[in-house]
Amino acid sequence: MPSYTAPTKDMQFILHEVLKVTQADVPGYEELEPEFTNAILEEAGKISSEVLQPLNAVGDTEGCKLENGVVRTPTGFKEAFDKVKEGGWPGLDMPEEYGGQNMPYVLNTAVGEMFSSANQAFTMYQGLTHGAASAILAHGSDEQKNTYLPNMVSCEWTGTMNLTEPHCGTDLGLMRTKAEPQDDGSYKISGQKIFISAGEHEMADNIIHLVLAKITGAPEGIKGVSLFIVPKFLVNEDGSLGARNGVACGKIEEKMGIHGNSTCVMNYDEATGYLLGEEHKGMRAMFTMMNEARIGVGMQGLSQAEVAFQNALEYAKDRLQGRDVTGVKNPDGPADPLIVHPDIRRSLMDQKSFAEGARAFILWGASMIDRAHRAGDKDADGLVSLLTPVIKGFLTDQGYDMTVKAQQIYGGHGYIEEWGMSQFTRDARIAMIYEGANGVQALDLVGRKLAVDGGKHVMAFFDLVKNYIKENSGQDEAFDKDFLEPLKKASKDLQAAGMYFMAEGIKNPNNALAGSYDFMHMFGHVCLGLVWAQMGKAAMTALADGASDKEFYETKLATGRYYMARQLPATALHLSRIQSGADTVMALEAANF
Amino acid sequence: MPSYTAPTKDMQFILHEVLKVTQADVPGYEELEPEFTNAILEEAGKISSEVLQPLNAVGDTEGCKLENGVVRTPTGFKEAFDKVKEGGWPGLDMPEEYGGQNMPYVLNTAVGEMFSSANQAFTMYQGLTHGAASAILAHGSDEQKNTYLPNMVSCEWTGTMNLTEPHCGTDLGLMRTKAEPQDDGSYKISGQKIFISAGEHEMADNIIHLVLAKITGAPEGIKGVSLFIVPKFLVNEDGSLGARNGVACGKIEEKMGIHGNSTCVMNYDEATGYLLGEEHKGMRAMFTMMNEARIGVGMQGLSQAEVAFQNALEYAKDRLQGRDVTGVKNPDGPADPLIVHPDIRRSLMDQKSFAEGARAFILWGASMIDRAHRAGDKDADGLVSLLTPVIKGFLTDQGYDMTVKAQQIYGGHGYIEEWGMSQFTRDARIAMIYEGANGVQALDLVGRKLAVDGGKHVMAFFDLVKNYIKENSGQDEAFDKDFLEPLKKASKDLQAAGMYFMAEGIKNPNNALAGSYDFMHMFGHVCLGLVWAQMGKAAMTALADGASDKEFYETKLATGRYYMARQLPATALHLSRIQSGADTVMALEAANF
Repeated sequence: MPSYTAPTKDMQFILHEVLKVTQADVPGYEELEPEFTNAILEEAGKISSEVLQPLNAVGDTEGCKLENGVVRTPTGFKEAFDKVKEGGWPGLDMPEEYGGQNMPYVLNTAVGEMFSSANQAFTMYQGLTHGAASAILAHGSDEQKNTYLPNMVSCEWTGTMNLTEPHCGTDLGLMRTKAEPQDDGSYKISGQKIFISAGEHEMADNIIHLVLAKITGAPEGIKGVSLFIVPKFLVNEDGSLGARNGVACGKIEEKMGIHGNSTCVMNYDEATGYLLGEEHKGMRAMFTMMNEARIGVGMQGLSQAEVAFQNALEYAKDRLQGRDVTGVKNPDGPADPLIVHPDIRRSLMDQKSFAEGARAFILWGASMIDRAHRAGDKDADGLVSLLTPVIKGFLTDQGYDMTVKAQQIYGGHGYIEEWGMSQFTRDARIAMIYEGANGVQALDLVGRKLAVDGGKHVMAFFDLVKNYIKENSGQDEAFDKDFLEPLKKASKDLQAAGMYFMAEGIKNPNNALAGSYDFMHMFGHVCLGLVWAQMGKAAMTALADGASDKEFYETKLATGRYYMARQLPATALHLSRIQSGADTVMALEAANF
Repeated sequence: MPSYTAPTKDMQFILHEVLKVTQADVPGYEELEPEFTNAILEEAGKISSEVLQPLNAVGDTEGCKLENGVVRTPTGFKEAFDKVKEGGWPGLDMPEEYGGQNMPYVLNTAVGEMFSSANQAFTMYQGLTHGAASAILAHGSDEQKNTYLPNMVSCEWTGTMNLTEPHCGTDLGLMRTKAEPQDDGSYKISGQKIFISAGEHEMADNIIHLVLAKITGAPEGIKGVSLFIVPKFLVNEDGSLGARNGVACGKIEEKMGIHGNSTCVMNYDEATGYLLGEEHKGMRAMFTMMNEARIGVGMQGLSQAEVAFQNALEYAKDRLQGRDVTGVKNPDGPADPLIVHPDIRRSLMDQKSFAEGARAFILWGASMIDRAHRAGDKDADGLVSLLTPVIKGFLTDQGYDMTVKAQQIYGGHGYIEEWGMSQFTRDARIAMIYEGANGVQALDLVGRKLAVDGGKHVMAFFDLVKNYIKENSGQDEAFDKDFLEPLKKASKDLQAAGMYFMAEGIKNPNNALAGSYDFMHMFGHVCLGLVWAQMGKAAMTALADGASDKEFYETKLATGRYYMARQLPATALHLSRIQSGADTVMALEAANF
């Protein structure tokens, strides 16, 4: 059976030696002293390993069951959910006035990675609630906030997001769910929503559904969509629970993975709903929390890659098979451990260098969210908006690939469910799809984000890389060669792709869109190249300062060198594909495929 | 629910316009007239679509059940197996003297692709039998052949291959299963084998297990391994079934996919076994059929990619979502079909260009097997031996990736089991693992095959590509530019990698082994580049000859151009990784990971 150990040391390194959070001019960051964050991370790691991880396989095997309208979660989930609530984890970064602890989002993201590595399906109940609460926090009236937030921040009540319908996912303008205005200011919501994670279950007293619907007579398409609060149980004025609302789970989907989470078809039959934000501005309300939600999904890509890597590494150390061609390493045993073989190393280094790079990238992104929200920094907001589709799309694609590599190290045992490696890939697979399929992320990046504010944010990104290289070059020859030169090359590739889009996209937008997926990936590689250079530099600094844990920093440098040598050069391939344009992509008539 | 239509037209194109089988100087190929092969392929396509495919989801959902020592296959499997037997399909390429039809292996491979696309788990019962029968055919005594082959060729009896034990997969020298010689010349076999596909079931009267074991007192390691025939029921002299042998299924594994195939733990308890071939030469006996078996697994990678692509294509044409940015394509509908979007095209073209290229590559490989076996051509044998790990490793890796891409086109529906796309990825996943995990294929290619006969066969491959380019260039400017130049570039990359291995591998073998996986992939790309050039040329010839089906050939050319522009350039990335050497790969101590 798999196990999980939280990478607290690596997180501490990123927070304090790379991001240097306490020196950042962001309200709340001054509290993030190493001892403090360490205590939080250690505690979160403990609950992850001891409470959540042991239920991961249980959730996968048992799944959720719908019986007479009641959804039963897997054995032990409710008890574990109670423990998570007792620890105050769901409200870690929520405002104190609603019972939260008002910690920065960056810390919440680190904790989220741990919970998700330990048990992604379980952690989604809490994650969806966080998303719904964030929407109410951003767009709700004071009355709505007071009515729902305290119980949602504590996860006494959970939340859901209802967007998809059977005939529309990405194109929500096609939506059919209706909202009929009532005399008392409420609405009657009717329609069917599908793929509703945590849509129904018995772990909370109430479930607060956020539902996109069209008010009778609303404008056509996406401009006529509004957002509604639809509680499972109506809430009385004194805060007690009232009547059961007209919303019910019609079916639980049989999925490839995340079996422990109840993915529901939700039927709304004249359910009472309350407008959240302005009418016909439902998409805007959804979008305000999109960055956080998508970074959260990118984090899931990392989380499954991390836990799969940990287990693959253990297996590679334990399993005796074949001999090191350069000389026997385990003369007393019948064979050498798998880890002596260069191709096993290659796979492990792929996984390790991805996980550590992805972690730094996500925590950097989360720190920009904090900077935007807590310090009102519009540039940080613009930059993280640009990078969000990269974090989501690149890290979930790569994260999935890494779980496949980890599974491969187990050979035949990787295919057998009891070894647990299959679950990591099956669970990781969903992150490439939900919260906007990765092709849609690429479209968002190239079709929208690049041009925001006249391209200001992408230029800022290039400047950031350029300045980083400039400021850090010429100090150490090996660092220049191993880190800065590859980064410079990759960044040039990315700029060349951007130039191509500008020059050729004007002639035909398909020239840009046909390269969007490659662009998202090359952007991701440049971001990981940048954070690896930053981590390499931080490691060199620590070594120069005579750090006691020499091995940790030398390993960090070696892992970074691997990424720069073996992964970052992928940008050239992506560029060549992009520069081949749309002609070969669009050559066929649909009928001739 | 998914469907499947056999690509008979594409297969006919490859057989007759690319490989030109009737003109090849291989015994038996003169019979392969277009009308004849078409009749066979149409008939095989019919049984695939109508009998096997409808049971694919049934097999996945029901799986196999072990009850009181009896393994029950999914509903309908036995009836379908009877139909396949009635059609004589299991013996298509087997000798007539044992009831087969003596057709070339190339035709059997085409039929195998269809069956496997329609139902991989089902087709494995027949595939394993074919493998076991081939071993008996190659190494059995006349008595053994007469005793077992007629019933195995007809699939009245099925077969299995027993290699893996709990503590050893790749490294079979660690094997513990014992064979104790008996006075009558037979052996008593005792031990446990795992991951035995089709190990036990009720679809056949008898199951003929081929089992690797060590004879008491045999040399240590791999040189002491022998191969045995161990029938489930002993066979009397008159051919009737005798006593139940000491072999039993101890457990059925819960797997990620291929649920319709019974993957068994097999326990041998003094089971009566008969030596097949010479004692202590068991591995050699296994290896003689390894090329065929591995090409068969490479074919599975293609087969799942093909059927997943077919269904993704239909979905992309049907599903209305969003609008074409260059102008509305479906003005009467609420949205345009997915297929208008460039990024969906990119994914579909990736899949289509892979499947058609892979098919040509495999059928070329199969034709070399025929040439080696039927015409005694040692060069063909050497070349196909070289290419076998490429066919197996590259096509199953890529095939799996393509099923993931196909699944992605379905968005959320791709993750829901009832849509069937998840099964294609879960079934395709095993092909990367069994019959030698793909890392082992890469090791076989770089650590062994490259150097066979002093590198003669890899030089022959380079000559083949060089001569092809030379003979076909200068005739059509566009063809030179779109096909031959990219092929030349990719082939140069491959040669440069080979040179690097020669120069640096001598200093440290890890410099070669650390690049083995990339080498396998770049080799695969060059092979697909070569067959795409050949197909492009054939399509141009047909068009110049005024072929009536213009669209088919123009589509073929457009698909080839896509592969050359978007996929083949991957060789440069693989080369850059290879040339970065082993240092970054091997930098860490195992304890520091």
